[in-house]
Amino acid sequence: MADAQRKMTNGRTRVEFETDPSRYRHWKLTVDGDVATLLMDVDEKGSLFEGYELKLNSYDLGVDIELADAIERLRFEHPQVRVVLLRSGKPRVFCAGANIRMLAGSTHAHKVNFCKFTNETRNGLEDASAASDLKTICVISGTAAGGGYELALATDHIMLVDDGSSAVSLPELPLLAVLPGTGGLTRVTDKRKVRRDLADVFCTTEEGVKGKRAVDWRLVDEVVPGSKLDATVAQRAKEFAARSQRPTDAKGIKLEPLKRTRTASGADYSTLSVALADRLATITVRGPEALPPASADAMVEQGAQFWPLRLARELNDAILDLRLNELDTAAIIFKSAGDPEQVVAYDRFLDSNEAHWLAREIRALWKRVLKRVDLTSRTLVALIEPGSCFAGTLAELAFATDRSYMLIGTREGDNNPPASLMLADVNFGPYPMSNGLSRLASRFLADSADLDRAKAEASKPLHAERAAALGLVTFALDDIDWGDEVRVFLEERASFSPDGLTGLEANLRFGGPETMESKIFARLTAWQNWIFQRPNAVGEEGALRRYGSGQKPNYDTKRV
Amino acid sequence: MADAQRKMTNGRTRVEFETDPSRYRHWKLTVDGDVATLLMDVDEKGSLFEGYELKLNSYDLGVDIELADAIERLRFEHPQVRVVLLRSGKPRVFCAGANIRMLAGSTHAHKVNFCKFTNETRNGLEDASAASDLKTICVISGTAAGGGYELALATDHIMLVDDGSSAVSLPELPLLAVLPGTGGLTRVTDKRKVRRDLADVFCTTEEGVKGKRAVDWRLVDEVVPGSKLDATVAQRAKEFAARSQRPTDAKGIKLEPLKRTRTASGADYSTLSVALADRLATITVRGPEALPPASADAMVEQGAQFWPLRLARELNDAILDLRLNELDTAAIIFKSAGDPEQVVAYDRFLDSNEAHWLAREIRALWKRVLKRVDLTSRTLVALIEPGSCFAGTLAELAFATDRSYMLIGTREGDNNPPASLMLADVNFGPYPMSNGLSRLASRFLADSADLDRAKAEASKPLHAERAAALGLVTFALDDIDWGDEVRVFLEERASFSPDGLTGLEANLRFGGPETMESKIFARLTAWQNWIFQRPNAVGEEGALRRYGSGQKPNYDTKRV
Repeated sequence: MADAQRKMTNGRTRVEFETDPSRYRHWKLTVDGDVATLLMDVDEKGSLFEGYELKLNSYDLGVDIELADAIERLRFEHPQVRVVLLRSGKPRVFCAGANIRMLAGSTHAHKVNFCKFTNETRNGLEDASAASDLKTICVISGTAAGGGYELALATDHIMLVDDGSSAVSLPELPLLAVLPGTGGLTRVTDKRKVRRDLADVFCTTEEGVKGKRAVDWRLVDEVVPGSKLDATVAQRAKEFAARSQRPTDAKGIKLEPLKRTRTASGADYSTLSVALADRLATITVRGPEALPPASADAMVEQGAQFWPLRLARELNDAILDLRLNELDTAAIIFKSAGDPEQVVAYDRFLDSNEAHWLAREIRALWKRVLKRVDLTSRTLVALIEPGSCFAGTLAELAFATDRSYMLIGTREGDNNPPASLMLADVNFGPYPMSNGLSRLASRFLADSADLDRAKAEASKPLHAERAAALGLVTFALDDIDWGDEVRVFLEERASFSPDGLTGLEANLRFGGPETMESKIFARLTAWQNWIFQRPNAVGEEGALRRYGSGQKPNYDTKRV
Repeated sequence: MADAQRKMTNGRTRVEFETDPSRYRHWKLTVDGDVATLLMDVDEKGSLFEGYELKLNSYDLGVDIELADAIERLRFEHPQVRVVLLRSGKPRVFCAGANIRMLAGSTHAHKVNFCKFTNETRNGLEDASAASDLKTICVISGTAAGGGYELALATDHIMLVDDGSSAVSLPELPLLAVLPGTGGLTRVTDKRKVRRDLADVFCTTEEGVKGKRAVDWRLVDEVVPGSKLDATVAQRAKEFAARSQRPTDAKGIKLEPLKRTRTASGADYSTLSVALADRLATITVRGPEALPPASADAMVEQGAQFWPLRLARELNDAILDLRLNELDTAAIIFKSAGDPEQVVAYDRFLDSNEAHWLAREIRALWKRVLKRVDLTSRTLVALIEPGSCFAGTLAELAFATDRSYMLIGTREGDNNPPASLMLADVNFGPYPMSNGLSRLASRFLADSADLDRAKAEASKPLHAERAAALGLVTFALDDIDWGDEVRVFLEERASFSPDGLTGLEANLRFGGPETMESKIFARLTAWQNWIFQRPNAVGEEGALRRYGSGQKPNYDTKRV
């Protein structure tokens, strides 16, 4: 079932997530006043792995990394942009979806990680609209098939050319025996609200749906004759721009390259370090070294060096690096070092500038990075020790973990002050998980009085026993017990089935309500992961392997 | 991966779902006034398949079929019972959960079907409480491990003996590398609302939790010293009985054995027939032959022969039979024959007697049977033809399908009247799907005006073109197109990957909100099904296969 690792192109051995428009091979980003255009023009030869060509604007992870980067840059570097047009640079095709040969030859782990990242990118498109009023319009001339249509589904407005051949389709099931798993099924039912039986017809019709029927079935927002396309697109862009509240006079900041040094056992960034050992990754985040700037203008001046933004970007990169490149890691351990008051001072600074576009973008970025942490299939642990600064935004890292251990008092020969947690307003709303609840609200599902009790303690340093009594940490331990307890836990964790833990954590982390987003990562993704294991898809005679071979797949006809 | 079918015991070749207390091998049902006791005392030698013994009150599907039957009988045969005590007939063990050797040796399909049925049984326990005020108390003396504790989780009140050894546990992950998949994880987070980090500790601790900690962590409702157990149980039973609104003076009806004849190509029941051919199962339900009874008393007099009850029980059996015994069936086609007005007359009869305990039980049974249809992993199709009676309750079958085809007008040489759909009050609330919405509300998620428009047409015969215009059917076809269209669709459907369809349908059928119940069948079950394919669980060196062998499992340590 193709579980041997594929070779990367150009001698690469790791997936890298940093890029910038000057290095894009697959997208062209142009900005014209308040309208940006993202032109998809995939370089056939620009694949991330060997063994396939990216024909017909099909994509692999490398293509999506560029898209994710472009959306981030539009948010930070071009705050005046109000509308993004997604278009194809190729004739007769918008996008053919995920590259099938790439999928067929990928390991199971890569398929799953690929889907997760691309889903996060599409959620990011929607977040740009919801949180930043950066509206997206998808202009489909030609075919938008599978992942191509799923990309369209993540935009605010889908325009389809009415030329007798341009169509949208989700042919994954009939062609490949897999699901439209990049949010496709969920967005069809829950965002576009296509009637379930019409959705069934649509998802089993290889050639898809075109013209007026696509509008009637709610698959696209409008069809436009080819002759009127450019005028109508310009008109729509104008309308959406007029409705956007993005600032008109803001000057963006430059998202400079991250400062990262790979070390023998991990990596050092400017605000955090990653240490790998014994199948554990320890991420130590460092609190700010200086007070927050005096004004919003000063924050803009600091740009990408502004501590909360720098840390968010570096943490994002570190998490993605572990996800894709360190599969053998059983657990991610979060530690922190710094002054809790300083961390909270930055949170207060952002609170008091919440109307400022950059403060809003930074908060929204943190929200997305924290969601990525939630969705990372590694055991997450917080070790809260003397000298740490799990306060405000950084306390969210502790609340994102499966378990937290907090040391009572100080350690002999250690000058650091006793560990404390410190809550701030930011812990009670601005960073919802994919289930729509804050991490503390998810934690205290049983009794909202627990949440109120925690809220009443905001801004106070909460030492271990108090934090445990409030239910904010799992265990408060003194120095005598600490070493053995933590070691035994981590050893035990590493001894469990990695798959079992993935399933366990995917369930326990997301109690309570579900949203479209959480449905995508649970219902849809979990079924897709199941199918990605089934011989009917990935076996030697399965559809994914036989696609394009001229041989029909041979299915086990038993329904499970 | 053990995908060879296991041999059944006692020469059986099919799983049978009908039983009655006189035939139980694993449970003893006793009734004492308003309190019933369900004593679990599993017969080690009474397994459904060969190759394992049901030690320590462990269970297989056969044990659960008896439990499901007992709950149904309590609802219909013993309406005066207000409280059910679940207890163990064995010393030092309440229930050890699903039998591990059974699981290890089962086909993937059987594992999935086993989990689905047992989940439905546990949901049925909760439905007995919610819909019929039949309260359940679980008395745990000894260990309640895995599925044993999951059974407890489905009850209204969990009592644990405080004897220093009795404990509740979910050891699936550490012991077997699978999930507590019979609702366990979801009920821990969403029903008991155990804090997520404590849930993590609980689910990774083989020996479980006992005594006061079990109460503090919300895992049980109370711990009781052994010396006071019987008195406290009696007291709780009394309290719960006092709060129940079940009737005090009602006399139950006897759930007589179903009338079923297996035929060469299916089965005949008194109200429906099943015809199997070409990987299709056609279920034709027949409308009532007589007017509804004149009074509620007359309904009680008819008992299990009362048409709606008879049909619900027979349909339930037919669906389960197809699910477990006809794995090769690609699609279930619903047809009906009878007078729509008569069907709706029965619905009106039940509406006007909605306060009567038996009418309420019949509606609740239909609700559960329809949910079972929704959750059946076969393509569901309705063919709505002249002479059919998809009206009221039976129209729900059409709305449960993935697609419906309705014939316009009549057929040459066919005296039957043109097909009509007929809506009634029952289509707008009493039969919620597991997402909490009625099938029509799920259908018309996009615009509630569509739902209102349908409602305004209640009680009118809606012919094909009108039904299609209202969005109630997928396609309205005339006789010329019908044959080819339907044939091509069914052939195409049978040509698709059965696994792909399972995943597709599990997503498209459940748009909109999620509930604890839908989370169990989507998030939890989908992850469990994935894990049930992973070598770390089911491979030769996986935990499920190596359990009890003295050999440790050998895991692929990569996280996916």
